[in-house]
Amino acid sequence: MSARGNLVVGQSGGPTAVVNASLVAVIQEALRHEAIGEIYGMRFGALGLLQEDLVDLRRVSREILEDLRRTPSAALGTSRVDLGDDDVEQIMRTLQAREIRYFLYIGGNGSAATALRLHRLAADVRYDLRAIAIPKTIDNDLVEIDHCPGHPSVARWLGVSVREAGLDTEAIGTADPVKVVETMGRHTGWVAASTALARQREGEAPHLIYLPERPFATQQFLADVERVHRERGHVLIAAAEGLVDARGQFLAASQRSVEADPLGRPQFGGVGAVLCDLVMTHLKLKARFDKPGTMQRVSSILVSSVDAEEAYRVGQAAVREAVAGGGGTMITLVRDPGPAYRSTTGTVPLDRVVGNVRRVPEAFIAPSGHDVTSAYLDYIRPLVGPLPRYAKLQ
Amino acid sequence: MSARGNLVVGQSGGPTAVVNASLVAVIQEALRHEAIGEIYGMRFGALGLLQEDLVDLRRVSREILEDLRRTPSAALGTSRVDLGDDDVEQIMRTLQAREIRYFLYIGGNGSAATALRLHRLAADVRYDLRAIAIPKTIDNDLVEIDHCPGHPSVARWLGVSVREAGLDTEAIGTADPVKVVETMGRHTGWVAASTALARQREGEAPHLIYLPERPFATQQFLADVERVHRERGHVLIAAAEGLVDARGQFLAASQRSVEADPLGRPQFGGVGAVLCDLVMTHLKLKARFDKPGTMQRVSSILVSSVDAEEAYRVGQAAVREAVAGGGGTMITLVRDPGPAYRSTTGTVPLDRVVGNVRRVPEAFIAPSGHDVTSAYLDYIRPLVGPLPRYAKLQ
Repeated sequence: MSARGNLVVGQSGGPTAVVNASLVAVIQEALRHEAIGEIYGMRFGALGLLQEDLVDLRRVSREILEDLRRTPSAALGTSRVDLGDDDVEQIMRTLQAREIRYFLYIGGNGSAATALRLHRLAADVRYDLRAIAIPKTIDNDLVEIDHCPGHPSVARWLGVSVREAGLDTEAIGTADPVKVVETMGRHTGWVAASTALARQREGEAPHLIYLPERPFATQQFLADVERVHRERGHVLIAAAEGLVDARGQFLAASQRSVEADPLGRPQFGGVGAVLCDLVMTHLKLKARFDKPGTMQRVSSILVSSVDAEEAYRVGQAAVREAVAGGGGTMITLVRDPGPAYRSTTGTVPLDRVVGNVRRVPEAFIAPSGHDVTSAYLDYIRPLVGPLPRYAKLQ
Repeated sequence: MSARGNLVVGQSGGPTAVVNASLVAVIQEALRHEAIGEIYGMRFGALGLLQEDLVDLRRVSREILEDLRRTPSAALGTSRVDLGDDDVEQIMRTLQAREIRYFLYIGGNGSAATALRLHRLAADVRYDLRAIAIPKTIDNDLVEIDHCPGHPSVARWLGVSVREAGLDTEAIGTADPVKVVETMGRHTGWVAASTALARQREGEAPHLIYLPERPFATQQFLADVERVHRERGHVLIAAAEGLVDARGQFLAASQRSVEADPLGRPQFGGVGAVLCDLVMTHLKLKARFDKPGTMQRVSSILVSSVDAEEAYRVGQAAVREAVAGGGGTMITLVRDPGPAYRSTTGTVPLDRVVGNVRRVPEAFIAPSGHDVTSAYLDYIRPLVGPLPRYAKLQ
């Protein structure tokens, strides 16, 4: 049951290494369906619909599409606007005026919420709109999906980069014994957890991994660092930017940059400096931090091939679902049972996704609170693929 | 004229992506010379000689050597000790006791200085020692050499990573318009300058590049950022960690971490936060920083093939020079004339290198003070090789 109509696709939230693969999949799949007329791209997410800043994606050449599939970041531009009810109604009028019946939004929870609002409003105004969310978030915090496109590539980037940063600290430990790697992850520890992939051999970096799922305890942290330093002569600590203390306050909230944020929002990114200060002040050990920041989420070089392929498939599935009459759903990835990794796509109603956050489960966090479990490694390894192996002298 | 004797090799200072290639070259070349008996590796640089913590490198298997050649960081470990005269005399006694006549030290200025001290002391005590420095520093600040092994790989890493981080900022500029990438470079701007490689098209990131060679002027900086933001809607700033103000004070010296450094040395790494504070406070624009830190210097994935090959050749040349009777020298790289890039190795007396720092020359800095010139790009591009090209929608 397909209604002839136009399609609009947008990208929202933080860019990733593979979100353009989802976009290209939407375009290439849409080109195959008679039911789809125009193929519009929103410039800068929902802003593009509010301001009618739309791109004609039928005009993009086949060659550019193929190159774009492997280009990191988000080619349409993204946004993080909070839409008011007036905005949503204005967008609905634009969709109706342009006879857009397929609304595909690539993003995380915020994008799913926008899709759900349009889905409900369309029902209210009796407009046949198929609003579908295509999952994308490096944070891996959407529910009802095995993992989120974008996350495996960050995990791969951090697995390799922390392995290398660990070799660096091991080499220079006599002069520079403590290093903190501050990862992304404002509310969950999925990204920080993935640094565990860095370990090629027992006892290698990261030696301590701190996740927002467990309140950060300063005395325990100092005891942990002191112990690892005593045992190994060097320490590599992985810490999520969103670490909180026992009162639920962000650790980074003590940083100057918070007060200076002109938008009044907490500025994440100070955890590395805070932890280094603690180590230097209390343990009298030299400490430095690496904060790869946005580089970790948009690397084309260390992209996971599973991730790139799945990001394409969820985009493709969204178009098929929409044309088949679906709507008000998010495309999911389901991990097939069996020893070899395989996934299939599925759908879930948006109201089961929106507003829910999947934190790292207990089964994936070591009892110590500063490491992951083998169950976690079994979960993440197939998504990331093999990492380069490095030699040691002894 | 070769004296039969043992050889010792060490690595010093910051690890790099290719310093193990130099080490493997020394071992593999040494294995070919009858004049060389034992092949010792110093554990943690000069510390290994002070504490007689030496590794028998003849016992390392051929397979491990081949893997090690492509393994980042410094497999022997490095150090940053300040040697006293007593230390140097003790090392000399160890060299004599172990009949070590070949002293090869892979590092930057500090390592060259150690080699020079041993060279002079050996002359004083009439011990036939061939002390040779093998150049290695990501900072690219040694004189009398076209470029330093280790630097081209950092330049390649930053070229790609800043290109990707720039696409990220371009995509998300409506929400997150200003990004600072803080690069290594405590006293020179070579590393920061290399971010210019990121530009694939006119007007792309980085939009502003600040080097320690020019005093940082706050009002000019704010005017520059404001202008780029007005013109493009987003700004990517590359800044060296060692930026100084007009009085020669490190910008990062205002950071808390400085006071907390237990060793009383300035802690670099605060420039990103300082610049973000300036932008947020004075321009009321949201700003964030990426500080890839040690990750930029030890990436095996983005290693420059020219760099890996040259790092091997300087190690090889050092052994040949030593066996041929040379000493008191540093191996150099000389760029051949002609359109295609080619280099040869040479030697320079250590006393022409030690204590001198090569800063980025005027001819490589744009008149604006916040960019590089085409002469610089002509210098750096052949060392780095082609970077991945990314697609754009328009």
